[in-house]
Amino acid sequence: MDNVGYCNDNYESLQNAASDDELVDIAGATLDFSFTEDVPPLDPEYSSGYDIYTNGVNGHVSGISGNAKLMDLLDEPVPGVGTYEDFNTIDWVREKSKDRDRHREITSKSKQSTTALVDSITDAFSGWLLMVLIGLMSGALAGGIDILAYWLTDLKEGVCLNGFWFDHEHCCWGSNKTTFQEMDKCPEWNSWAELFAGSSEGAAAYVLNYMMFMLWALLFAFLAVILVRAFAPYACGSGIPEIKTILSGFIIRGYLGKWTLIIKTVTLVLAVSSGLSLGKEGPLVHVACCCANILCHLFTKYRKNEAKRREVLSAAAAVGVSVAFGAPIGGVLFSLEEVSYYFPLKTLWRSFFAALVAAFTLRSINPFGNSRLVLFYVEFHTPWHMVELVPFVLLGVFGGIWGALFIKANIAWCRLRKNTRLGRFPVLEVLVVTGVTALLSFPNSYTRMSGSELISELFNDCSLMDSSQLCGYVNSPDNRSDSALFSAFSDRASGPAVFSNTLPDRPAGPEVYTALWQLALALIFKMLITVVTFGMKVPSGLFIPSMAVGAIAGRLLGVGMEQMALNHHDSAIFKSWCSPGADCITPGLYAMVGAAACLGGVTRMTISLVVIMFELTGGLEYIVPLMAATMTSKWVADAFGREGIYEAHIRLNGYPFLEPKEEYGSKALAQDVMRPRRSDPPLAVLTQEGMSVGEVEAMVADTEYSGFPVVVCQDSQRLVGFVQRRDLVISLDNARQRQEGVVSTSQVFFTEHVPPQPPSGTPSVKLRGILDLSPFTVTDHTPMEITVDIFRKLGLRQCLVTHNGRLLGIITKKDVLKHMAQMANRDPDSILFN
Amino acid sequence: MDNVGYCNDNYESLQNAASDDELVDIAGATLDFSFTEDVPPLDPEYSSGYDIYTNGVNGHVSGISGNAKLMDLLDEPVPGVGTYEDFNTIDWVREKSKDRDRHREITSKSKQSTTALVDSITDAFSGWLLMVLIGLMSGALAGGIDILAYWLTDLKEGVCLNGFWFDHEHCCWGSNKTTFQEMDKCPEWNSWAELFAGSSEGAAAYVLNYMMFMLWALLFAFLAVILVRAFAPYACGSGIPEIKTILSGFIIRGYLGKWTLIIKTVTLVLAVSSGLSLGKEGPLVHVACCCANILCHLFTKYRKNEAKRREVLSAAAAVGVSVAFGAPIGGVLFSLEEVSYYFPLKTLWRSFFAALVAAFTLRSINPFGNSRLVLFYVEFHTPWHMVELVPFVLLGVFGGIWGALFIKANIAWCRLRKNTRLGRFPVLEVLVVTGVTALLSFPNSYTRMSGSELISELFNDCSLMDSSQLCGYVNSPDNRSDSALFSAFSDRASGPAVFSNTLPDRPAGPEVYTALWQLALALIFKMLITVVTFGMKVPSGLFIPSMAVGAIAGRLLGVGMEQMALNHHDSAIFKSWCSPGADCITPGLYAMVGAAACLGGVTRMTISLVVIMFELTGGLEYIVPLMAATMTSKWVADAFGREGIYEAHIRLNGYPFLEPKEEYGSKALAQDVMRPRRSDPPLAVLTQEGMSVGEVEAMVADTEYSGFPVVVCQDSQRLVGFVQRRDLVISLDNARQRQEGVVSTSQVFFTEHVPPQPPSGTPSVKLRGILDLSPFTVTDHTPMEITVDIFRKLGLRQCLVTHNGRLLGIITKKDVLKHMAQMANRDPDSILFN
Repeated sequence: MDNVGYCNDNYESLQNAASDDELVDIAGATLDFSFTEDVPPLDPEYSSGYDIYTNGVNGHVSGISGNAKLMDLLDEPVPGVGTYEDFNTIDWVREKSKDRDRHREITSKSKQSTTALVDSITDAFSGWLLMVLIGLMSGALAGGIDILAYWLTDLKEGVCLNGFWFDHEHCCWGSNKTTFQEMDKCPEWNSWAELFAGSSEGAAAYVLNYMMFMLWALLFAFLAVILVRAFAPYACGSGIPEIKTILSGFIIRGYLGKWTLIIKTVTLVLAVSSGLSLGKEGPLVHVACCCANILCHLFTKYRKNEAKRREVLSAAAAVGVSVAFGAPIGGVLFSLEEVSYYFPLKTLWRSFFAALVAAFTLRSINPFGNSRLVLFYVEFHTPWHMVELVPFVLLGVFGGIWGALFIKANIAWCRLRKNTRLGRFPVLEVLVVTGVTALLSFPNSYTRMSGSELISELFNDCSLMDSSQLCGYVNSPDNRSDSALFSAFSDRASGPAVFSNTLPDRPAGPEVYTALWQLALALIFKMLITVVTFGMKVPSGLFIPSMAVGAIAGRLLGVGMEQMALNHHDSAIFKSWCSPGADCITPGLYAMVGAAACLGGVTRMTISLVVIMFELTGGLEYIVPLMAATMTSKWVADAFGREGIYEAHIRLNGYPFLEPKEEYGSKALAQDVMRPRRSDPPLAVLTQEGMSVGEVEAMVADTEYSGFPVVVCQDSQRLVGFVQRRDLVISLDNARQRQEGVVSTSQVFFTEHVPPQPPSGTPSVKLRGILDLSPFTVTDHTPMEITVDIFRKLGLRQCLVTHNGRLLGIITKKDVLKHMAQMANRDPDSILFN
Repeated sequence: MDNVGYCNDNYESLQNAASDDELVDIAGATLDFSFTEDVPPLDPEYSSGYDIYTNGVNGHVSGISGNAKLMDLLDEPVPGVGTYEDFNTIDWVREKSKDRDRHREITSKSKQSTTALVDSITDAFSGWLLMVLIGLMSGALAGGIDILAYWLTDLKEGVCLNGFWFDHEHCCWGSNKTTFQEMDKCPEWNSWAELFAGSSEGAAAYVLNYMMFMLWALLFAFLAVILVRAFAPYACGSGIPEIKTILSGFIIRGYLGKWTLIIKTVTLVLAVSSGLSLGKEGPLVHVACCCANILCHLFTKYRKNEAKRREVLSAAAAVGVSVAFGAPIGGVLFSLEEVSYYFPLKTLWRSFFAALVAAFTLRSINPFGNSRLVLFYVEFHTPWHMVELVPFVLLGVFGGIWGALFIKANIAWCRLRKNTRLGRFPVLEVLVVTGVTALLSFPNSYTRMSGSELISELFNDCSLMDSSQLCGYVNSPDNRSDSALFSAFSDRASGPAVFSNTLPDRPAGPEVYTALWQLALALIFKMLITVVTFGMKVPSGLFIPSMAVGAIAGRLLGVGMEQMALNHHDSAIFKSWCSPGADCITPGLYAMVGAAACLGGVTRMTISLVVIMFELTGGLEYIVPLMAATMTSKWVADAFGREGIYEAHIRLNGYPFLEPKEEYGSKALAQDVMRPRRSDPPLAVLTQEGMSVGEVEAMVADTEYSGFPVVVCQDSQRLVGFVQRRDLVISLDNARQRQEGVVSTSQVFFTEHVPPQPPSGTPSVKLRGILDLSPFTVTDHTPMEITVDIFRKLGLRQCLVTHNGRLLGIITKKDVLKHMAQMANRDPDSILFN
């Protein structure tokens, strides 16, 4: 196993590419695989090595079909049967059957003794307990990440003399010299220039601060990339594409292991603090899923069943978004809409519970110091007007176009990185990008601050006491605060009376114009740098950068609209609803709508995005603007290409992901997609009797199929069942080792009744136990749209094709994906896994 | 067709029971069926009558399988093929195929001409347009219902002299003699005693008011039941059980037709105004679904496809709850959790859109006169404490027990009504129940007011200026309003400063004790009367009565807790968090938690209930108490019986509803459930060639199966396809009529290539066009749990069972349901439909 890392490297490069980086051997990333196995690994050379794992995987393999029991060989289950290899797809039907068998067993036992009854009750409540644990752990981790990231981000600019472990805000809170007007200025907080040169004024101090800012940024980024590469190559990126694939039934061992968790948590703090254009929201979903996966090991029910585990992981995805934004309902809908594949109602309810536990855990840690649940708390009080839907829709168009362009540019850049020498120097790449980011972002105050601070500032409406540059409006004498106060009181319909937020529109002062220029530059900078940042070998989320781009564009448009309304309030557009001296336009709302539009354009989220935004504002009022922008954004972006950024990355990596949302438009029939094609050799089938161990082994060795149909006899081709390659290999090896007298000429029987052994002959091998007697079949005339629907809804790995009762061929998930790629004029060979 | 009505009468009684009620013939409820047909009806005697409908159902029947085209007979599709009979289940797979074919056709045409391109774009946006229309129509209807119900409810007590069309509140709004303290008292509003006797004081006036109250109530109820029985028997009940069944794929013609809509809207107003213990929330879902179904007729895409129509109906269910509570997100989740069967993501997004449109339409109509979106607006500002989880959980237990008991009692009562002479006098029943309700509810002010007013009052926290009886606390001198105001201002963390809501706990005065007694009596009354009310032949929802019961119980407990905290604030329980003079307990919150618990116990809703309540309060704070109560309530109620009230009514009516939530625990295999059983005659199959028209017709006449498998030949039993009985009958009749020379001895061919017709013989009938070449098959060894999963997820009507490629038998949805009923020790013959 090579250690180049994972983001945007495909499996082949992971497995085959020779390492040319001396950093690899420092700690050996292969550690990751042995440390974080979810299922005991099975050596590819089956003939040795699996005895060690006997304790791990016994039991629960009898669920393949109703009466298939593994009692044949020495009356005990063969270890390893019923498990999966790495980079393979699980069989949902089999996993769910296994769980039902387990459940039935517990229920029937519970009637026999009190202990078993207690066990049964514990089992029923273990799911809820698990949710509590996941919520607590994820909430605590998210709180820790927030606090550390604040501290490290501020460390780039200066240090607190009361204690270096205070961030800027807490440093000045502890100070008794802080005035209410300038909360963020206090003598205890020293910039680096003050500390080293004793002054914060002048060019020298500026340069010194600049240098320190860049040095810290480079140090954080270097640490992050080194840690990722040394200990957990899976910790890079946002993780959402891989989690989507895992939830759809794919197995990537170690992707959600404890090393990934530890390294991702630490490097996420470092990456965010380094000032790179990335967010912590996507990676928090990955962190929550790691927590869930590790905690699953505490409960047999979830440890041993891949389908049950995925239910928990779906809930964990909701938890991740819940702690990222403080939006539990939005988190659940995000998991439902964007991430999950199989989402039964029970999971919906549990996700919601876990998301709430996590949100309250985070709030009790209180990393933002304001006991608020949400990341960006906003309170608007001015209603919007129908005319404003035009700029909102324009923001949607901008978001859609930017989203589509961003995806294309980012994928092109990632492809370049993958296919050229560029990808061989990930550490250098991270350092260069960090250097450029730090160099360009320091002079502009809007890029210097962290992404979430920027968004907070842009969302906020200007209050009377606001000292921000963006609120540098000219106060004309007739717009005194008294009248504003009065209007706030008299305006009963718009909600509870609040003092500071209902200011009339005012002309922009020079400060505002400076701020607009800086914002425009920040917009261009963010739009460009994010393309090269997302996909580097550090943890990186896309939510915050996308929202920042949209918020800047929205705020610019909002201020523009405000000034237009102010100067042309008697024009036809504004006359009917905007009288002079009234507060008509809320630029903060425009920023929020823009943020939603851009995030929607990049991820193609719809309802979950609107609900997350709704939870931030808490008012149903503003849902209509958000919805108009999000819908426009999705439609515009879809016109350029139907894939969101996560689907695009899934395809880039060649994962076997059967998109549940995509419409399937082809008129092909099952017979057009199935293997063998007309020119191929006939299908490799086993017969239920009459084959010897040697013949079976030869067939296995000659082919690479992951399973074989079993038929009555070669002539009739009438289907009996299906046997998995892995189960077959393990069982035959087991028989050769444990069953005396089994040689290559021994007969293999898949039938229920085995003829009595001839006294002189070798003992026969009975394999009915591993035979799946209920393989899914479709006829050759079944339209592929129905077949695809069956694959999606039932979570199949393969499906057999029959004609008038005779076996014709087989369709695997990979065949379906390849066919769909071909339909969409894409390279079918980009599908790498089964 | 008999007209006894629909609520809790099964199909048999509808079809067979002789009418003994002279009311029936007044207008002829059979009208309903011909007026509201969704699909052109086909006369049971197929040989005549279908020619009339030729224009209605041509096209779109070719989707049965990829290459099955109906070009055989005279090269045009046979009318009626591909449609369904009343009280039958649709085939989801076939319907979805049909829609995909239609979509493909439009897409391919759109490349040819501009007109077709415009058509294609119109087609794409027709879904959104439909959503707008549904939202507008449902919102407008809901607003009208609200306004009329307010007016009629107040009419029971008195009349406005300014104009009889004003309700009490609007009458006094228009008056300039109203004081701020007593908003609801003005000289223009006269009670009946004032109007007729000139005085509102004294026993005589009381008796006169009492009489008028009862008279109006009886009049409203009589009108409601007469209208329902005369014009639309389907308009009674809540409609949610039937809508659940329809959404799962069942067909009940006219259930969502225009007569049902008109009559349900009118009678809902009457029923609510009559003061019966019922709500308008469930029926509003039915009304919204009727709107959706009628509006579907505007768009070919939805008119002609049963599956597409059901997507729209799912969205309409969300709209119904959205307008009922002003909770769009909660409505969407209600549709997802409780009502819908097939809910793709596209529907999620559209439902949300429609729900928002409806909510905003309702708000612009502003029936409550306060420009609020939500039905019960509450704003709590006091946080709750961990210790309070104990009473919240107790409320959950109460809600669960009451819910379970209510279901059992109501079902027993409905069964009694169905099986005894009681059910023959529905009008009398309604009048008696209304009379008793009015008689008992007038003396008690909490039962006299409407259910939603009661809930509003119980949810509300006492403010300083509150004149309600429940707020008759003793104001001690140290609890002056100034200190309350001050504490409201100083308590910044709990939200924006509001003046009136943060009052310290105070000792209860005599008024409160009177109120508590009245509430206790109201609780008992509501608990009993609701059991006999739900299921009568008037529109009746359960949400409001259940919530009222819970809210009363919660408020009682809340006041109790409040007084306990006040008198024992230095005991161990309260010491740590409740200092004297502080506002520790919010009785309104207890009422809300109780309401959620009882509603949860009755309907078993979980997440949607919590989200609806969250939308009412707008604060994430109170989700935890709500969640604790709802979860407890569900668990407790589930311990008594796993069915909610809607599932119980579905079972009572014998609808074929395959519950997607129910866990399937049996170990049976497909071969144990399939027909024919061992003792039965062999399966009726057609052969693909060699049968004559007469033989086929004889087989159809001899059996009642809704479809027949087609095999290669009787000996091999190898499966070729499946043909629907209805399609077969229509096609044979069509051939006999239109194709010259077809007689009983003509050969029937299901094969692709028909041998050339012998010159002397009769022409052969080619029926490959109606043959489904991709029937679903499972093997005989497939566990039933997997088979049930396939039925649920793919929405099948039937599935064929094979063994080693040979056809063995068939499993229909009815067989599955019968088997599940048997497993649960219920009568399998209660499943009436297929």
